[in-house]
Amino acid sequence: MAQKPSTPKGTRDFSPVEMARRNYIFDTIRQVFALYGYRQIETPAMENLGTLMGKYGEEGDKLLFKILNSGDYLRGVDPGLLSEGESLRLATKICDKGLRYDLTVPFARYVVQHRDELQLPFKRYQIQPVWRADRPQKGRYREFYQCDADVVGSDSLLNEVELLQMVDLVFRRLGVRVSIKLNNRKILAGIAELIGAPDKLIDITVAIDKLEKIGLDKVKEELAERGLGSEAIEALVPVLGISGTAAERLAQLADILSSSETGLKGVEELRFVVDSTEALGLTAELDLDVALARGLNYYTGTIIEVKALDTPMGSICGGGRYDNLTGIFGLPGISGVGISFGADRIYDVLTALELFPSDATRSTRVVFANFGPAEAAASMKIIKTLREAGISAEIYPDSSKLKKQIGYADSIGAEYFAMIGESELADGTVGLKRLADGTQTTVAAEQLADTLGH
Amino acid sequence: MAQKPSTPKGTRDFSPVEMARRNYIFDTIRQVFALYGYRQIETPAMENLGTLMGKYGEEGDKLLFKILNSGDYLRGVDPGLLSEGESLRLATKICDKGLRYDLTVPFARYVVQHRDELQLPFKRYQIQPVWRADRPQKGRYREFYQCDADVVGSDSLLNEVELLQMVDLVFRRLGVRVSIKLNNRKILAGIAELIGAPDKLIDITVAIDKLEKIGLDKVKEELAERGLGSEAIEALVPVLGISGTAAERLAQLADILSSSETGLKGVEELRFVVDSTEALGLTAELDLDVALARGLNYYTGTIIEVKALDTPMGSICGGGRYDNLTGIFGLPGISGVGISFGADRIYDVLTALELFPSDATRSTRVVFANFGPAEAAASMKIIKTLREAGISAEIYPDSSKLKKQIGYADSIGAEYFAMIGESELADGTVGLKRLADGTQTTVAAEQLADTLGH
Repeated sequence: MAQKPSTPKGTRDFSPVEMARRNYIFDTIRQVFALYGYRQIETPAMENLGTLMGKYGEEGDKLLFKILNSGDYLRGVDPGLLSEGESLRLATKICDKGLRYDLTVPFARYVVQHRDELQLPFKRYQIQPVWRADRPQKGRYREFYQCDADVVGSDSLLNEVELLQMVDLVFRRLGVRVSIKLNNRKILAGIAELIGAPDKLIDITVAIDKLEKIGLDKVKEELAERGLGSEAIEALVPVLGISGTAAERLAQLADILSSSETGLKGVEELRFVVDSTEALGLTAELDLDVALARGLNYYTGTIIEVKALDTPMGSICGGGRYDNLTGIFGLPGISGVGISFGADRIYDVLTALELFPSDATRSTRVVFANFGPAEAAASMKIIKTLREAGISAEIYPDSSKLKKQIGYADSIGAEYFAMIGESELADGTVGLKRLADGTQTTVAAEQLADTLGH
Repeated sequence: MAQKPSTPKGTRDFSPVEMARRNYIFDTIRQVFALYGYRQIETPAMENLGTLMGKYGEEGDKLLFKILNSGDYLRGVDPGLLSEGESLRLATKICDKGLRYDLTVPFARYVVQHRDELQLPFKRYQIQPVWRADRPQKGRYREFYQCDADVVGSDSLLNEVELLQMVDLVFRRLGVRVSIKLNNRKILAGIAELIGAPDKLIDITVAIDKLEKIGLDKVKEELAERGLGSEAIEALVPVLGISGTAAERLAQLADILSSSETGLKGVEELRFVVDSTEALGLTAELDLDVALARGLNYYTGTIIEVKALDTPMGSICGGGRYDNLTGIFGLPGISGVGISFGADRIYDVLTALELFPSDATRSTRVVFANFGPAEAAASMKIIKTLREAGISAEIYPDSSKLKKQIGYADSIGAEYFAMIGESELADGTVGLKRLADGTQTTVAAEQLADTLGH
């Protein structure tokens, strides 16, 4: 036989069981998004390269999957580019389109393109795959789904409050205990201002982030290596020492940042978000973490990151506020805030903690045996009544050996194997075998839908 | 301002209203698939080009979207190919992957790749976009969704019966009156055999198909032009004359094809399918059409095509049996039968006939006014109770002018606009305005979920 065909490197097929589990996650997220008034949109898999290039840094440009133009794509291309080493420059000549790299840039493009039809605030959610030409490795794929909810056109912090409620509800419904880390870009700016190193924001957060792991002295060393003066480092020490609940940390930060208008604004914003959210009752713990900086150049206010408590997995959800999403497409002044759920990692968390409900993978409830044409015809009529009652059912299509038929019912996770043989056909009954425990009963055919309905 | 960004030619964004309508179609199809025991899979957007090339004819190869290899993709490429006119040959050197063109070839690849894990029969459905570099025109897009259900590994005609029931149920649930055309490739082969022109199958069906439009004489002329001898044409006349119900036509065909074993086998297969399906009670009319030949080189048994009766739209669903789906990947002997729903055309049919239920486009049921911080905080608490009762609700995030807030609620199709102002805050009530007719009531805050629940 020829070589087995396969999916491209870094991409996956999803089997029925995997799909059922993935849909359990997607449906949970989708239902929460809708409950909070977010509305679904979809954008095309391809965007014009001009929409994508330059939005994810130089490295990101390289990771964009580019789509070769149709037809005679070499026509008019400078022959000088047709040589080794000119790959990236040639690419933009022979490719006009690329696959989307995330859902945020396409959303920004969407808002600008459709701004005349949009009523602001616009609360949208989007659950679609994205593609990145990353080197595939464990848990990192070249095609994966993102589940994003964003609201644009409103500066209100109530949006942040709702997004936190949504995060909390999604993970409550999934049964995953999480910690929600919070920060505010303005607090980070205030800290940098305070220690006189506004250009060292990233270095500072990277170092702070290691505090628990390597201790204060090592953090100080690292900060020095990163070019911070000793005065700046000493000024940072009180920040490193804040502790307690989110409210307590905010009080300490307000003290420390009392001279920074920006810093205080960040504390005030975060206090509103924390107080309002907690007044509404949250299951998850809110954890103020001044080292949290995800996509620093991007966020301008609140920053959110979610981790599972009971299994090590990195971030499974994150987001924040950005003040100028659509500025890159020439429409300034539209603020937004959003969150993104990482479906693949959530899948891994639910797998590790065995949190998928058993009925999430059930497909057909009843498989009917096939004992031959007459029995099959009678079974099809009963199956029709089951389906009309909303009960998924099917007949094994061929009159194969019974063992094979039961094996099939087992393999797809059916609840029952139903048998209408010669004698059942004669007296209008159905033999019903519960596959989990093998118990067998006989039910009047016309009672079957009722019996299974409960 | 910079030039408005846009989606690539032939691709579309879907707005919240469009998504709600599309989901209504997808959900209807998905629920029917599941009710009949079909299980969802997904395959990656990209396939290796080797998987796709040569499967859709020479024209199809040109319509595949090819993905440029990452990194220095020109390395090692014969410089002779780097010149105009060599576009297609170069493409296969600098592109290893392409976007899927349909769901059938990826499914065949899936079955072969995963054959050791699969229990046959395997009933799968798949609802995903496909991409074709066709010239965009009205109703033809470069990205569109297919909704396919196929069963492989079973020769039983009960599969055909179930697929017809599924087609019938989908369109019944959508409220679309359809005609289901049926044919069988073996009948076509029998006809070609009968008139001594087995290589003229396509010419024959194309000509027969025009019978109603151009009349018998013109059809005869066309057949002669297509190279059929006068004897063959005269032998075809009885076939052109069959009429009546599906059962009547089958009886006439059995007469005409009495000398063709293949033809009679086709009649017998179709008779079983028609009789069994009608015994189970179908809403749609089954229409035996010997001119029906969709993808002739592909199907080997039953051929199915569905058209809407009340609006001209071409085929909105089609399918059939193929005996060697996986042979192209070196795994022979696996028979399959399936159907594919065209979501875009079904969307257009439902739009033309105004069949979308009004609640298919509703998003949030209740939008709460925002009169300021205290009122907003109180509203958020009430909203929480609504959401806990499964009622989608949101607060307008900013305390803008009331007119703007109501305008927003209107624009998203909310059912109610709820107001908690100073006086409602004082006496624990909510002002409730039904947006459809402007009627206004006052409800005790703790009664609100119950009031809206009905």
